[in-house]
Amino acid sequence: MDKRRVFTIISKAENGDRASRRFDVFIIAMILLSVLSIILESFKGLAIRYQSAFDVFEAFTVVVFTLEYGLRIWTADLLYPESRHPRVRYIFSFMALIDLLSILPFYLPFVAADLRFLRLFRLFRLSRLLRLFKLGRYVDSLQVIGSVVRDSASQLIASIGACFLIVLISAILMYGVENAAQPEKFPNIAEALWWAVCTLTTVGYGDVYPITTAGKVLASVISVVGIGIVAIPTGIISAGFTEAMRARRAQGEDAAEEHAAHKRYCPYCGNRLD
Amino acid sequence: MDKRRVFTIISKAENGDRASRRFDVFIIAMILLSVLSIILESFKGLAIRYQSAFDVFEAFTVVVFTLEYGLRIWTADLLYPESRHPRVRYIFSFMALIDLLSILPFYLPFVAADLRFLRLFRLFRLSRLLRLFKLGRYVDSLQVIGSVVRDSASQLIASIGACFLIVLISAILMYGVENAAQPEKFPNIAEALWWAVCTLTTVGYGDVYPITTAGKVLASVISVVGIGIVAIPTGIISAGFTEAMRARRAQGEDAAEEHAAHKRYCPYCGNRLD
Amino acid sequence: MDKRRVFTIISKAENGDRASRRFDVFIIAMILLSVLSIILESFKGLAIRYQSAFDVFEAFTVVVFTLEYGLRIWTADLLYPESRHPRVRYIFSFMALIDLLSILPFYLPFVAADLRFLRLFRLFRLSRLLRLFKLGRYVDSLQVIGSVVRDSASQLIASIGACFLIVLISAILMYGVENAAQPEKFPNIAEALWWAVCTLTTVGYGDVYPITTAGKVLASVISVVGIGIVAIPTGIISAGFTEAMRARRAQGEDAAEEHAAHKRYCPYCGNRLD
Amino acid sequence: MDKRRVFTIISKAENGDRASRRFDVFIIAMILLSVLSIILESFKGLAIRYQSAFDVFEAFTVVVFTLEYGLRIWTADLLYPESRHPRVRYIFSFMALIDLLSILPFYLPFVAADLRFLRLFRLFRLSRLLRLFKLGRYVDSLQVIGSVVRDSASQLIASIGACFLIVLISAILMYGVENAAQPEKFPNIAEALWWAVCTLTTVGYGDVYPITTAGKVLASVISVVGIGIVAIPTGIISAGFTEAMRARRAQGEDAAEEHAAHKRYCPYCGNRLD
Repeated sequence: MDKRRVFTIISKAENGDRASRRFDVFIIAMILLSVLSIILESFKGLAIRYQSAFDVFEAFTVVVFTLEYGLRIWTADLLYPESRHPRVRYIFSFMALIDLLSILPFYLPFVAADLRFLRLFRLFRLSRLLRLFKLGRYVDSLQVIGSVVRDSASQLIASIGACFLIVLISAILMYGVENAAQPEKFPNIAEALWWAVCTLTTVGYGDVYPITTAGKVLASVISVVGIGIVAIPTGIISAGFTEAMRARRAQGEDAAEEHAAHKRYCPYCGNRLD
Repeated sequence: MDKRRVFTIISKAENGDRASRRFDVFIIAMILLSVLSIILESFKGLAIRYQSAFDVFEAFTVVVFTLEYGLRIWTADLLYPESRHPRVRYIFSFMALIDLLSILPFYLPFVAADLRFLRLFRLFRLSRLLRLFKLGRYVDSLQVIGSVVRDSASQLIASIGACFLIVLISAILMYGVENAAQPEKFPNIAEALWWAVCTLTTVGYGDVYPITTAGKVLASVISVVGIGIVAIPTGIISAGFTEAMRARRAQGEDAAEEHAAHKRYCPYCGNRLD
Repeated sequence: MDKRRVFTIISKAENGDRASRRFDVFIIAMILLSVLSIILESFKGLAIRYQSAFDVFEAFTVVVFTLEYGLRIWTADLLYPESRHPRVRYIFSFMALIDLLSILPFYLPFVAADLRFLRLFRLFRLSRLLRLFKLGRYVDSLQVIGSVVRDSASQLIASIGACFLIVLISAILMYGVENAAQPEKFPNIAEALWWAVCTLTTVGYGDVYPITTAGKVLASVISVVGIGIVAIPTGIISAGFTEAMRARRAQGEDAAEEHAAHKRYCPYCGNRLD
Repeated sequence: MDKRRVFTIISKAENGDRASRRFDVFIIAMILLSVLSIILESFKGLAIRYQSAFDVFEAFTVVVFTLEYGLRIWTADLLYPESRHPRVRYIFSFMALIDLLSILPFYLPFVAADLRFLRLFRLFRLSRLLRLFKLGRYVDSLQVIGSVVRDSASQLIASIGACFLIVLISAILMYGVENAAQPEKFPNIAEALWWAVCTLTTVGYGDVYPITTAGKVLASVISVVGIGIVAIPTGIISAGFTEAMRARRAQGEDAAEEHAAHKRYCPYCGNRLD
């Protein structure tokens, strides 16, 4: 099998290419099964009982993803034909770094099988879920959503910046008001930040809340303002979708107008256009 | 009474057909009373005191719904005149399956009066509330809402898919961070999923929440992102309604333009149209 | 002072009529002070200490509102000049009934000074806050909001109907799933309805929540659907405001076009229109 | 360095003016570091250990901000060249008052070094975070958001007024219903207001909630209405952004039309324009 064929198979499938399509489905299935095994392994009973099965599946997925990673590096010169160092460029691309992160933790213990390292290993393994983002590579329907978010990115960032400012100011004020009354709930501004986030997102777990009158008045003002702040990004995104729908409709109308123009008559007075 | 008359009566009422209208009102009333009896029967005191009354009403509703089901099967050839097997087609239609599910649990004990079956019977009876969906058959006003949801279905599904991905990633990360500190609250990823859903929907019961600093930072990031995610389906639906309103208005304007055209002048250059 | 002058004074003030304006401000101030006195009287300490002051103020406001009520009945024939029985018509208008409700509780003890009546009296006095709705009579800025809500009323009602259906189904299902595990939290469907409302509005007090796995899965599905349901009325109202803004802008553009038409030239090719 | 040069440096940087740009970055950094020091100082351990470092940094920032304040007053005649009393006008401008508030608390103890004053001093220092609003002076991207909020300000105020009315009525009603059952949770209407705000913003901490059946029915109605009320400002802001996007697009189209006009043909009937 020549290099070009390997490249078309591991690239996103085009219509009619069954081998490439099967490869895509296989990789997505491996990612989903790998996530499922993480979830199942979190149940202590299952983890102990089927330890070897989990280990074998773990090894299998890592081998598969390592092979895929290797093939992508091998065919990188076909992905970036104009680049001088296509492999270096590929290795430092965002998707390749995620791929590396998702297989690296498995190989680390072979390098340094330290006991403390094995404990850390458990946390590193969580990076495996970053493979989920690979799904995005194969899903088209997210594109409209993505483009709307991108189009209004600058406004979204500004409004999120305003949110951060409000969270910060709320936390500092609430710390000043509630610290004396509840030193164990508001011991420092970092804990007050947790309260501010819980309140302004309207999650409201109820683990931290003001008990003084001043604190309740302040929290009332902050949560009412919070609704307004939440309304801003919602409004921006909503306007973005309205605009996207209008643009799609306008395209349809333009096509219709062009079609009418082919008849070479003014669409309004019916005179010939020449 | 001939078959065609029965069919028009049990079909949705048209203007002026009083018998058909009365039948519709009677069936809706039976459904609502049946739901009311489920609610009342859930009060232990009432259930014991008026057991026989509940049983009689239960039997009555089932007889009515069985009769209606029978009549609909009998007149199925008038509903699907072009179909070869109209009754088979009707029985396997969505509404007919719901109708069957809502009366079947009553007849099951006659077939197999097992003690364990009688316990299950209590849960099966809950399917009776599926009759509520029958209301949809008679209500027109939900159609605009339905068409807006349908029109933006693909974007809605994509954004809900993104929500699922975020819930999954949040749960796995939070399990990794909080499991050691609160093994009874985050014993496995399934419980962490419950936390993730409660947080990202901003319900926040307060039964599960992070207590470590890392967990709180992570939860803050997740809930802020959660607002953005919630904003996306809201934005899509909002844009859909804006578009629907614009379309309705455009129809009105087109009619007005056509009216203006009857004046037989080009509205732009003032030349006669002939 | 003749009847017509009294009528213009107690009607909404027009520009330049200072006496009428002062009367409006006085009535609004009385309503606000009356509400403030309700709030202050709810503090037990204040209520005991300044009992007589509260009683005097209470009597004064009731006298003022009774006088206003009397004057409005007296001048009703100027409000409905075309009506045969203008006073009867006014007495049974919505605003007049609210006015009556807000003063009636004060006169009841004189009629039947029963001890049990005096206790009920406390609850009746709460109807006094209905005077607040009088504020609506004087505020114009709420009209745009009101017209948007009215224009999309049928869709709003349909979507709120869908919300009720979902609340009902959620409650019955959750009662079936959680009743056995938490009989004290889900004793009947009425209590399950409370849970459903708290969850679907995303308030989530945390006094009632599912503890079984089946209940958590069900609650997750319900709360995710809940976000979608909440998005529908939000979307409808948002679209209504977008439409209202567009209409206002279109009016401006129509005026501009009409202005251009007065120049009697085709706005596109510059030829005379005649 | 002459006065005009000082003025351009402390004014917002224009392209190419490096000294002015550096000054802006320096002031923003000082504000952020000052906020960071407030957060760090709230940790008791750090506050005791590095007391002197915090004090030195505090003094340094106050000196810097005092110098900046002085320079702005000195150059006020260049900011308001047309004004008669430019310095008085500057001192009473909103931004200058915030600047003064943020440095004043540091100088107060020198004037009256009372012990009680020193305690109050801790609260006054919180006003330092008002410097954060200075960031707004340098950030442009917030302008679109600001203009949208301004354009729909009157409707927003009216809808927020409606929110206040609903909060007030909810609180008074709930106090009447729940006071007897939970005198410690609903001792007066002020505490009921706290419940109303927590519920209508859907924060729902769970520290106060109704326990009587009447209270739960009332709370259900209020929270369902609450969703509708929250939908109104969201809808207004969303419509504002849709309108702003449409306006930007229309500008683009006008430019395109003008460009097309340069081709000197009527786009409708194809005649030359001359």
